[in-house]
Amino acid sequence: MARYIVKFGGTSVANIDRIKHVAGLVARMAHDGHEIVVVVSAMAGMTNQLVGYTKSLCSTHITSEHDVVTASGEQITVGLMALALQQLNLKSISYLGFQIKIKTDATHTNAKIDHISTRILEESLVNGIIPVVAGFQGISNNNRLTTLGRGGSDTTAVALAAVLNADRCDIYTDVEGVYTADPRVVYNARKLNAISHTEMLELAAQGAKVLHPRCVELSLRYNINMQVLSSFNLVSGTQIINEETLMEQTSIRGIAHNLSEAKVTIESINPITPRMMADLFSALSREHIAIDMIAYVNAGQGLKNTLNFIVNKDDSVRANVKIMELKSIIGFDTLAIDPNIVKISIVGIGIRSNLEITPLVFQTLADHQIDIQMVTTSEIKIGLIIAHDHMTKAISVLHDALQLGASTE
Amino acid sequence: MARYIVKFGGTSVANIDRIKHVAGLVARMAHDGHEIVVVVSAMAGMTNQLVGYTKSLCSTHITSEHDVVTASGEQITVGLMALALQQLNLKSISYLGFQIKIKTDATHTNAKIDHISTRILEESLVNGIIPVVAGFQGISNNNRLTTLGRGGSDTTAVALAAVLNADRCDIYTDVEGVYTADPRVVYNARKLNAISHTEMLELAAQGAKVLHPRCVELSLRYNINMQVLSSFNLVSGTQIINEETLMEQTSIRGIAHNLSEAKVTIESINPITPRMMADLFSALSREHIAIDMIAYVNAGQGLKNTLNFIVNKDDSVRANVKIMELKSIIGFDTLAIDPNIVKISIVGIGIRSNLEITPLVFQTLADHQIDIQMVTTSEIKIGLIIAHDHMTKAISVLHDALQLGASTE
Repeated sequence: MARYIVKFGGTSVANIDRIKHVAGLVARMAHDGHEIVVVVSAMAGMTNQLVGYTKSLCSTHITSEHDVVTASGEQITVGLMALALQQLNLKSISYLGFQIKIKTDATHTNAKIDHISTRILEESLVNGIIPVVAGFQGISNNNRLTTLGRGGSDTTAVALAAVLNADRCDIYTDVEGVYTADPRVVYNARKLNAISHTEMLELAAQGAKVLHPRCVELSLRYNINMQVLSSFNLVSGTQIINEETLMEQTSIRGIAHNLSEAKVTIESINPITPRMMADLFSALSREHIAIDMIAYVNAGQGLKNTLNFIVNKDDSVRANVKIMELKSIIGFDTLAIDPNIVKISIVGIGIRSNLEITPLVFQTLADHQIDIQMVTTSEIKIGLIIAHDHMTKAISVLHDALQLGASTE
Repeated sequence: MARYIVKFGGTSVANIDRIKHVAGLVARMAHDGHEIVVVVSAMAGMTNQLVGYTKSLCSTHITSEHDVVTASGEQITVGLMALALQQLNLKSISYLGFQIKIKTDATHTNAKIDHISTRILEESLVNGIIPVVAGFQGISNNNRLTTLGRGGSDTTAVALAAVLNADRCDIYTDVEGVYTADPRVVYNARKLNAISHTEMLELAAQGAKVLHPRCVELSLRYNINMQVLSSFNLVSGTQIINEETLMEQTSIRGIAHNLSEAKVTIESINPITPRMMADLFSALSREHIAIDMIAYVNAGQGLKNTLNFIVNKDDSVRANVKIMELKSIIGFDTLAIDPNIVKISIVGIGIRSNLEITPLVFQTLADHQIDIQMVTTSEIKIGLIIAHDHMTKAISVLHDALQLGASTE
């Protein structure tokens, strides 16, 4: 007998038929003698609708009321899922964040889990009851509803796997697993049988949509075995496991791309000093604008000095306003924000050791006349900013050059 | 400074624009220096949608999960309403049933309020905060969500008015008040300026949809001044007040009609004894089938004895099954259930004293060839069952005969 946390995303519970279907999957696992804790998201589209409501009333700042509204989505699904399991003659009960005490901080719409009480869930499992837990939501110390932000239900599932010492956390979604590249972009993208937590973290952070980086980070920290698989096609998915247990060490695991970022270019005849950069980045940080891939070319006095970095497209208007406010202090000449870029990330533990990969990447792009606007490298990742127009071609030629499509696993 | 409970129904909060509009109404009252507690229903259509979901999964019996799903509707609205008030620079905070401890029994989907803690709400009011309370929902002793059944949000509002010693409970809806008859049926139906609690209770119980009998009952018990008015047209509504304070005592207050009932007819050559009726009604009661207007004509041995009573249309299939199960015990000959009826109720404190009214009612219907299938009378009500086909005509001619359309108030 094993203990599994089983999480179903929005498309997997999009309507009553889908809910019945996934209840059947849970029933099969339960009949096999396993202990199951179910975590559900809101029905597909529901959270966006609710967020739309709150934004149309108040888009300028966040209050605890935003969470009161959006947390209802998961509340609907837990009740329906518990009902569906009961209809299959299984004992099941739903739990909202406040009922099992998923205690979080009070950072509304993006709260962090502080503590989860396991008493009620353990009692349910001992009594043969399948608990259905609302993902995405928690309760703050002053008894207000909170939500966990993007990927919140995945985070709930992994956190429960950690505190309940689950054998595995299954994330059911609408894709069959993690691919070497987005199958909609690269025709011969290959589904990975297994990937390490760190590789998955990089892929997720760099735009692979299948899992949110936050939940992967949690699974890495607590060493939770995960599985990403489809609730639509019952084929084997992708295991996310301990690096040491990964048998095959191919150099590169996959290529992620991220279209949600914009490139900021600040040009100045005068050098931009570290003090100026500190002022700039502090100001953006105070506005909760995250930045990435900072690159500064100091051409010297009288020449064009260029500072580049990346912001989220959603933040680019606010970033523009904020930076222009600092123009007189920093004393730059021009500011440009280019949204027509894509960040391509090549991820794999093999990058650390395989010295041929970085030159191969540059050579491949050069061969196809694709300009690299910015580049960063880390132990297990190469990140590239290129023009959006070149995206499909760039990913495809890199995928081929790195032999990701071949069945070498 | 007065203290008001202000409740907005589903159509009054049907979309963001409506929510902004009613937030404006609340703001005006707050700016006048009053203490306001807001109670809201789910957005129009939402509860039906959620009930539809649960019924499509499980229509045969009720579990606590039904309430988990349906309670989300009001959760969405409280958050949005609190946000809308905050946008008007008012301090506001939403409260769900579990947060202010609206304790109920565990009769899921039809729970009764046991106790409401006032501490949190009084603290909010002292601090100039407008609490927005989710109607319809509560929490049971074992920490499960409950809902209060039909008219639940009105019940929440009146219960809060009672425990908070409010000066008045305003029920905002999509009609302008309580009418002498349904304006869609009687062209010259007149809006009442005032009505007593007992009269309103009879009208509500007999099918006037504007208020649920349960909330009126509560307002009668705790002597809560109420007001029914429109959030769409800002004209004066109908006051529901103490009988003694009603200045004008017209004989008849209004005519209600109810299309949700069906007539059960059991015929038997042998007499149906009180023991048999007790068995029958006990069996129906155990099935939670409410009955009304029992009428038995004992024609004597060898003649046709007829037992009539009324059940809700929703219960008529189950009633049919249950009664047929008892056929051998009761020994009746035929059972018929007729849904094509309407119950018309003439309500007014004046009926007690005015001996001319009952004959006038019968005379009027006879003059128009309208058969009366069943009749019951009480101190302040005459109830009539007639064929559905005659409904509009019957209500209209009675409304005229009883001079309800004339401006005699």
